[in-house]
Amino acid sequence: MSSREPRSRFTRCSISTCPQNAGEAVVESDRMHGTIDRERSAARIGRDIETLAAPEYTLSDEAIRRYAYTPVYRNTLDFFTRELREIGFEVSEDAVGTLYARNRPPGEKVFGIGSHCDSNRNGGKYDGTMGVVTALEVCRLNEELGLGLPLQLISFLEEEGSGFGQMLLGSRIIAERVSEEDLRERFRSIDDGRSFWAHAEDAGYEPARWRECRHVLDDLTGWIEMHIEQARVLQDTGNRIGVVDAIAGYVHADVVVHGRGDHAGATPMDLRLDPTLVLADCVFELERLASEAGHGTVGTVGEIEVDPGLINAVASSVRFSLDIRGPEDTVYRSVADEIAAFAERAARQRGMRAEYRERQRLAATPMDARIVSALADAAAASGEPWRRMHSGAAHDTMCVADRVPTAMVFVPCKDGISHHPAEDANPANAALAAEIILQAIRSLT
Amino acid sequence: MSSREPRSRFTRCSISTCPQNAGEAVVESDRMHGTIDRERSAARIGRDIETLAAPEYTLSDEAIRRYAYTPVYRNTLDFFTRELREIGFEVSEDAVGTLYARNRPPGEKVFGIGSHCDSNRNGGKYDGTMGVVTALEVCRLNEELGLGLPLQLISFLEEEGSGFGQMLLGSRIIAERVSEEDLRERFRSIDDGRSFWAHAEDAGYEPARWRECRHVLDDLTGWIEMHIEQARVLQDTGNRIGVVDAIAGYVHADVVVHGRGDHAGATPMDLRLDPTLVLADCVFELERLASEAGHGTVGTVGEIEVDPGLINAVASSVRFSLDIRGPEDTVYRSVADEIAAFAERAARQRGMRAEYRERQRLAATPMDARIVSALADAAAASGEPWRRMHSGAAHDTMCVADRVPTAMVFVPCKDGISHHPAEDANPANAALAAEIILQAIRSLT
Repeated sequence: MSSREPRSRFTRCSISTCPQNAGEAVVESDRMHGTIDRERSAARIGRDIETLAAPEYTLSDEAIRRYAYTPVYRNTLDFFTRELREIGFEVSEDAVGTLYARNRPPGEKVFGIGSHCDSNRNGGKYDGTMGVVTALEVCRLNEELGLGLPLQLISFLEEEGSGFGQMLLGSRIIAERVSEEDLRERFRSIDDGRSFWAHAEDAGYEPARWRECRHVLDDLTGWIEMHIEQARVLQDTGNRIGVVDAIAGYVHADVVVHGRGDHAGATPMDLRLDPTLVLADCVFELERLASEAGHGTVGTVGEIEVDPGLINAVASSVRFSLDIRGPEDTVYRSVADEIAAFAERAARQRGMRAEYRERQRLAATPMDARIVSALADAAAASGEPWRRMHSGAAHDTMCVADRVPTAMVFVPCKDGISHHPAEDANPANAALAAEIILQAIRSLT
Repeated sequence: MSSREPRSRFTRCSISTCPQNAGEAVVESDRMHGTIDRERSAARIGRDIETLAAPEYTLSDEAIRRYAYTPVYRNTLDFFTRELREIGFEVSEDAVGTLYARNRPPGEKVFGIGSHCDSNRNGGKYDGTMGVVTALEVCRLNEELGLGLPLQLISFLEEEGSGFGQMLLGSRIIAERVSEEDLRERFRSIDDGRSFWAHAEDAGYEPARWRECRHVLDDLTGWIEMHIEQARVLQDTGNRIGVVDAIAGYVHADVVVHGRGDHAGATPMDLRLDPTLVLADCVFELERLASEAGHGTVGTVGEIEVDPGLINAVASSVRFSLDIRGPEDTVYRSVADEIAAFAERAARQRGMRAEYRERQRLAATPMDARIVSALADAAAASGEPWRRMHSGAAHDTMCVADRVPTAMVFVPCKDGISHHPAEDANPANAALAAEIILQAIRSLT
């Protein structure tokens, strides 16, 4: 099989010869610098990114628009299949279309790397795709340098939810965080309303075997996903690499404030029960609570809905959403509890009534300390500016972390812009990430 | 003609015998109490209101829904025509359908009373209609008591804008505050998109003669409109009658705050430019400015629109409306100027940018001092609790005031609810208003 040759090379760089601490890592890194040509890696990553932005890989000529079971998504999987086969990987797709590729036969332990290659409907070139392209570069370097590391690349299906409105869908299927009814009935195409199931079958997959998808993770000894940061922390702090030590958990909720609808012209200020005042109270209080909570806690009022929403009517009620997140469950959840209590109190003090309704909560996902440490060592050894950080955004890695030790690497994206055609990221940073990931895996395997 | 008999009676109560000051008004009021049966007036007003809530007078069985050129509106005009003819009035309709009825021949001076009998689409029984019914009761009392006052009742067309989305349409036509192009082209039916012009012609009117509508006001020596208050001032202050001394002017505007859209999970609190904070600043500041301005000034944020309006996105921008009103142009307009400057300053202080865009401004309409005074005297003489107040809402009387000395009388409506099927008002208060209006006109003519 095609994985034989790299495997034989791998035996020349076994675990026993790999560095186990930072001091050795520096030495090892120096050794690797002799062989890794960062500029060549950056050029290849840049070339692949541009290739996948060509018309045959996107449904829109104004954005990257690519999602499961479309011809452009098929073309994208085919691109990765060709590239991976060329360097001796066995490429497969699971029962619904998650692509995975290995340089070891099934049953042998491998280290997982990858991301997703679907896009937001109005997306850019980098979100997800740069992570898969960078994983491909790690595989290439592994082969070229004769490191022989046992690797499995995964490109998860439908991370963005552009096809069926369901985020992290491929990785949730693998983690069995969906039900058969979800797949057969509930999850429906945004384009035509037909079920995920029907679309998967039309594309030649076997959704009836979806429970077998879990086996994609069976042989993994670890997992590292590279992704663009989707925010401004790295750019604003002048770092090229973020080593992610946790993915934030969150509470999503709504507050509804019941005031009293009145004629805006005819109702004196002192006879009003205007719920927009309680909204304003809560906007300020959430800002204060989240800022003072520290530990990466953030709180956002992103949706505001005024009823009846007329220029000449004092609102009868206002609904607003709360998105409260952080890497430490106890900290951000206490912010959620406090703002819920505050909203009720603030409304009562103004003679109104507020209800807090939680939509959803998801615990934070800590990354594996050993992998994080290996990445930190490799980042330090790279000589480039880097920082530890958490991810505020959700990623497929959350669904991997239940079963496999995981971590993530972030690279900056310009001005934090993501999910937009203006999204931009530097392939040189992705090349640096590839080097760091490769180095970390060497130190771990 | 039918107006002869009342006219001859009128000669027995000429101007010279009517009271000209409050002291005399009390005496006169006492004299009238002997003849006015308030309970009978209340019963007739209540009966007429209920009649006009029957199925042949509304398009909806869940609300009063009545607007120009519908069969139910025609039935309503026919009702008033029958009732007015029965007491000897000449009834006409102008070139577009405003109904007017006189007990004097054209060219003779008359005192105008009335309101509108169209409704909001989801309306109640009282808004407008109670004013016309009360004016009818004034006409009846005038005849029954043999007062012989020269009267003209007007029921304006399309005050609510339910038919063509244009408020005060009939009275604006009379005041020539519309253009021919508006009527021929721009004003279109909410139901079928056809022009006002076409609908008026189909209903048998002559819109080409719309400029003649102005003559409806030609012979008026004064005008009094009774209307439900549409707010809570009378109810909450325990008054049965409001004598309106001004109709508020207003400024309608929008503020757009440009922040920076960011990922709600991934963007730390101190790296955000969240425009909802400027919204909250402005909500509080408008509340403060309007409250401190006094003089009946009110300010309302009734519309809030967040872009992109997603739970997991820091807003990139927020638009909110401003409705700032008051009876004194200099006062409320200075609040508008101050909030505009404040919004720009508050945004700048938070590193953002705000734009203030005025939509529309309309000057306040002061009521005629002599008519207000006559109404105040009559209200005082009634022995019932009353107050002077201004109207925060717009009324047809604004379009009459350019050419005729005007005033208005308010009666309470329950909990300030209006434009809703739950709208409720007590016919006993309308009967009291009829008595006060009649008494005021006696003192003025």
